[in-house]
Amino acid sequence: MKKLNLNLGEKSYPIYIGENLLSQADYLTKHISGNQVMIVSNTTVAPLYIDKVKSLLTDFEVCEVILPDGEQYKNLDTVNQIFTSLLENRFDRSSTLIALGGGVVGDMTGFAAASYQRGVNFIQIPTTLLSQVDSSVGGKTGVNHPLGKNMIGAFYQPKAVIIDVDTLDTLPNREFSAGMAEVIKYGLLGNENFLSFIEKNVDSLMNKEKSSVIDAIYQSCKDKANIVAEDELEAGKRALLNLGHTFGHAIENSMGYGNYLHGEAISIGMYMAAVMSEKEGFIDQSQVSRVKSILENCELPTRLTGKINFSDFSKSMSVDKKVLKGKIRLVLLNPIGAAFVSDDYHKEFLDQTIKEFC
Amino acid sequence: MKKLNLNLGEKSYPIYIGENLLSQADYLTKHISGNQVMIVSNTTVAPLYIDKVKSLLTDFEVCEVILPDGEQYKNLDTVNQIFTSLLENRFDRSSTLIALGGGVVGDMTGFAAASYQRGVNFIQIPTTLLSQVDSSVGGKTGVNHPLGKNMIGAFYQPKAVIIDVDTLDTLPNREFSAGMAEVIKYGLLGNENFLSFIEKNVDSLMNKEKSSVIDAIYQSCKDKANIVAEDELEAGKRALLNLGHTFGHAIENSMGYGNYLHGEAISIGMYMAAVMSEKEGFIDQSQVSRVKSILENCELPTRLTGKINFSDFSKSMSVDKKVLKGKIRLVLLNPIGAAFVSDDYHKEFLDQTIKEFC
Repeated sequence: MKKLNLNLGEKSYPIYIGENLLSQADYLTKHISGNQVMIVSNTTVAPLYIDKVKSLLTDFEVCEVILPDGEQYKNLDTVNQIFTSLLENRFDRSSTLIALGGGVVGDMTGFAAASYQRGVNFIQIPTTLLSQVDSSVGGKTGVNHPLGKNMIGAFYQPKAVIIDVDTLDTLPNREFSAGMAEVIKYGLLGNENFLSFIEKNVDSLMNKEKSSVIDAIYQSCKDKANIVAEDELEAGKRALLNLGHTFGHAIENSMGYGNYLHGEAISIGMYMAAVMSEKEGFIDQSQVSRVKSILENCELPTRLTGKINFSDFSKSMSVDKKVLKGKIRLVLLNPIGAAFVSDDYHKEFLDQTIKEFC
Repeated sequence: MKKLNLNLGEKSYPIYIGENLLSQADYLTKHISGNQVMIVSNTTVAPLYIDKVKSLLTDFEVCEVILPDGEQYKNLDTVNQIFTSLLENRFDRSSTLIALGGGVVGDMTGFAAASYQRGVNFIQIPTTLLSQVDSSVGGKTGVNHPLGKNMIGAFYQPKAVIIDVDTLDTLPNREFSAGMAEVIKYGLLGNENFLSFIEKNVDSLMNKEKSSVIDAIYQSCKDKANIVAEDELEAGKRALLNLGHTFGHAIENSMGYGNYLHGEAISIGMYMAAVMSEKEGFIDQSQVSRVKSILENCELPTRLTGKINFSDFSKSMSVDKKVLKGKIRLVLLNPIGAAFVSDDYHKEFLDQTIKEFC
């Protein structure tokens, strides 16, 4: 078991990464303060792991709420189901919510915990690679609005994150690849050594060999934890974590949720950011190819398969949260391993980039 | 103009109290950081004051969202209208929300500000006495759930509170009285001198004479600010502010919102707390009468007019947020001017108290 700490003063918390963690009660129970525990999961993950988690909680009053599975349910109505269940079961302010599932479950459970009685404790047990390396760490919670992704939410930190890599055994390969997009992101944005590690170990990673996977998750969480510790509320450096996301969210918004997995949209988005960075003269063609190769070696898309209208795509980009005072901010590579946030780029290069992908 | 400061470190903010403040742009504009301003008001208050506020904001991009008026609309669906309007108008993370109205508008606008893009700035312009002395100060925001009042929300502080007492000229007398319930509360819970001030000046207060009203609002906000500065997240002392509220919320829940104004329910609730305190031997009958007199002199109810079933009332009390681990916590008087939080009381006295009022 490897342990990391996210340093946020009073809000600091541990991230445990290892095998077989869901068979050991202590990682979980020592972070529960009250007596009432609500496990929030979905129809896919609950049948696989909820009994295992419940068996660790014999000393507590445990309830569960099982949500429908899918990004299309990540909205206020679904979060309201959690509130209803908490109230029906008379959960008080000292209760603890456990998010058992992927990013959608984690984001909604975190927002429910942030908002229920103005804040109760919660613990993340992410079961997908994507959520293990990204959404479960850093305290971003929230839901989508029909007019934009993740537009409603809170910065709210969990008491602990428990990453049991055994849960990846049941994860479909397509979703594992989607998670690899975020792993690759950490290499691209600030850690060229880590990118080389991924390139060198791509086969064992894609075969889900535990030791490589634990190393990759550990390094991803470590890189993210360092950035979040510096800039919890995304006033500056944290924006680097959005590499590929402005393009990616526009893909998700204009194609409709569900066509692409989040990680797949981000994969295309990161490649678009690389293409744009080349137009701006920050990287050369060989570096663009390097980005393309590692994404494709992880079985990730670098091209849109469906057709998107250019103006729809541009419009979708401009409602993203990263738009500041009307100007779209992009995360670009200068070079690989050193991303930066820019609103000082050539608008025509952005338009060209979008056109090449539409 | 009187000015108070709520001391919460980086989250500190000023509270301005005076006449004619909505004719002076500076109080408002110096607390707006971005260029986009969304004024949230309701169908009652907007026709009276929104043009005045807009005329202070000629240098900004200003939009408005006008909500239906009433506690029955204080829910997630109505907050979602604010999100929709913000997104339709492409409001970004640097935008500012202004709550123009009473407590319902303030609570919903604050929660929308806390949750929109995980947090944008907001400013409170409370236009009712109740919101001026209570909800606009201290950062409690949120909405009701069908199963309980204020069950969904956030602790989220405004950038400033602007209290123009001229707005009380258009406030119906019944609502002014409801606000007086919270003013009296500060006297009862921790400031016997202030209670004497209210008793001595009850006529000029009820005649809305500006100088008395400003003094009463100033002292109320000061007492509240001191408590909040000590205990922002209601881990301890802040619970004293709930004097009358556990009973009061049960009245609102079991009678349905709309029969009693919040302040009226709190008035009955505070009187119930006094009766209960007498049963426990903390105060004597003359002190109970003193509580009754000042409430009645402010034209507030001390009895339920409709019938409530005893078991419905008890059940309503037990879903209140102030229930900790199944035990209802009460704020009691020991004596007047010195409230304390208790879960060590005689259950039979609580039952007797409820029965006397049902």
